[in-house]
Amino acid sequence: MVKESDFAWAEEPVPVPPAGGFLVRNLMLAFDPAMRGWIEDRPSYLPPVGIGEVMRGSTVGQVVSSEHPGFAAGDLVQGMLGWQDWVAFGPGAPFVSKLPKGASPTLALGVLGTTGVTAYFGLLDVGRPKAGETVVVSGAAGATGSVAAQIARIEGCRVIGIAGGPAKCAWLTGECGLDAAIDYKREDVGRRLGELCPRGIDVFFDNVGGAILDAALARIALRARVVLCGGISRYNEERPSPGPSNYLNLVVQRARMEGFIVLDYAARFGEAVQRLAQWVAEGRIAWRADVQHGLENAPRTFLRLFRGENFGRQLLEIASPPL
Amino acid sequence: MVKESDFAWAEEPVPVPPAGGFLVRNLMLAFDPAMRGWIEDRPSYLPPVGIGEVMRGSTVGQVVSSEHPGFAAGDLVQGMLGWQDWVAFGPGAPFVSKLPKGASPTLALGVLGTTGVTAYFGLLDVGRPKAGETVVVSGAAGATGSVAAQIARIEGCRVIGIAGGPAKCAWLTGECGLDAAIDYKREDVGRRLGELCPRGIDVFFDNVGGAILDAALARIALRARVVLCGGISRYNEERPSPGPSNYLNLVVQRARMEGFIVLDYAARFGEAVQRLAQWVAEGRIAWRADVQHGLENAPRTFLRLFRGENFGRQLLEIASPPL
Repeated sequence: MVKESDFAWAEEPVPVPPAGGFLVRNLMLAFDPAMRGWIEDRPSYLPPVGIGEVMRGSTVGQVVSSEHPGFAAGDLVQGMLGWQDWVAFGPGAPFVSKLPKGASPTLALGVLGTTGVTAYFGLLDVGRPKAGETVVVSGAAGATGSVAAQIARIEGCRVIGIAGGPAKCAWLTGECGLDAAIDYKREDVGRRLGELCPRGIDVFFDNVGGAILDAALARIALRARVVLCGGISRYNEERPSPGPSNYLNLVVQRARMEGFIVLDYAARFGEAVQRLAQWVAEGRIAWRADVQHGLENAPRTFLRLFRGENFGRQLLEIASPPL
Repeated sequence: MVKESDFAWAEEPVPVPPAGGFLVRNLMLAFDPAMRGWIEDRPSYLPPVGIGEVMRGSTVGQVVSSEHPGFAAGDLVQGMLGWQDWVAFGPGAPFVSKLPKGASPTLALGVLGTTGVTAYFGLLDVGRPKAGETVVVSGAAGATGSVAAQIARIEGCRVIGIAGGPAKCAWLTGECGLDAAIDYKREDVGRRLGELCPRGIDVFFDNVGGAILDAALARIALRARVVLCGGISRYNEERPSPGPSNYLNLVVQRARMEGFIVLDYAARFGEAVQRLAQWVAEGRIAWRADVQHGLENAPRTFLRLFRGENFGRQLLEIASPPL
């Protein structure tokens, strides 16, 4: 299990951008379970963060000074600016973009950020739900799961969310408009899935893995699609725990289990952000942010994800705009 | 583990077909690992064989008498005629078909039978290999695996087979023309896959499951396809063993693991049989049959599959034509 002492606090002078560059002050930092994989010492879809390097992370920041023609002081920007206060950019094309019009930092890092876009492509492109189908989402109260579940609802599916605790379940069936929610901390997930999905699960959108994935695999419908978005139950294991023992049900049900990485959809992010922003504006996607405060609390805030303590997108406010 | 005493020998008078029907004498019976699932008392893609019923199985038989316009005495037919000597059909449309022209019973039950057709659709439709890709097949010396591996070779892929014992491996790299073979009984499958597939596995065609599937999942390439054809290592388990612990590599590699059942391709069997027959006629697909003798040895012959004793399609000669 990752722990606070895996991170160290370091102070350095505020960087000075080269001529033609600009300086950004980070305002808000977002946390994903996937970040756990970034600090494993093994190759993956992104290189590991090295010891002594700034921890990678999505942020929203504000430009405080600029000689760059594309950015002006006061602009809100987002990008992988890491767990730090200040970032200096040179005169070239920077890996940051301006916030979508009218988007708050919280919304930009949540529904319109990586987690929302992940939900969008994972559900629609990999899961391909059809109206009337039964969609089950694990980690359904999380930043990705809650958006995936609500997109499925918008697409006309019957949607069941799996989450931990009565408050999250009540939010799913209330504000989020899901057809049912299963509290994995109190209920037998397999038995409840059997009751709630008498014709089987057509799309299972998995953020959790472990016993929940196995329970779902046992109840997939013919030609089901299992979307592997993540496996938070496994990210902190020293040695890999057993995989889903019911995987051969993929044969019996002629079903597909498929993983994806949202970075592959980078060229289509605009499409996703536009549709998600529209749905949010129409009040069709409910969302929550869990905002903690102070960069010094970044490690502690990261750990909230693995304890299931966050309710909504896990964010950390580093500073308040405008500076 | 299924055992001989799970089966009983029963004698009855030779059945008499109704008016307009015909009588078939079974000549040759084929065995698949999948038959193990048919005697589990749980629903699957086919109903379980009930206690006291004739065991289900693919056979080639010969029509010995007929009043049916579609069949004449002497015709060779194939179908799911079961572990028995005689089958009587009525005047309607029977669930048997005549053998492809020029096909021996052995060929009709092998490369041109269920196993060959399973290999054809599983590899080409589910696996979708492209020329130049690396294809790995487990159970590669088996009736399905050997055909899948050779179709991949015909399609221009680099093909590695996993099989048990030096004789099977030598056959794969010799007559079958595979690029390499791994002897899972003597070699470290994971290490050898790493050496033989430096750029990863593009298509893994799995007949085995268990540790071999896990070793392959650890080494899949970007956008790999894992074709779940079967899992012979698991068919005789009383309680399900753990699944593949490396399944989350499907996320990292944006890969797909998919099951299929050949019955779904029934409408396209003709296409598969035609192409397979052509390849066999051209000498491009090597095949072997392991022919045992005597219906009374059916249970014992079935068990050979799970002990890895068969080398080639497992068949049992019940009687010799012509009668």
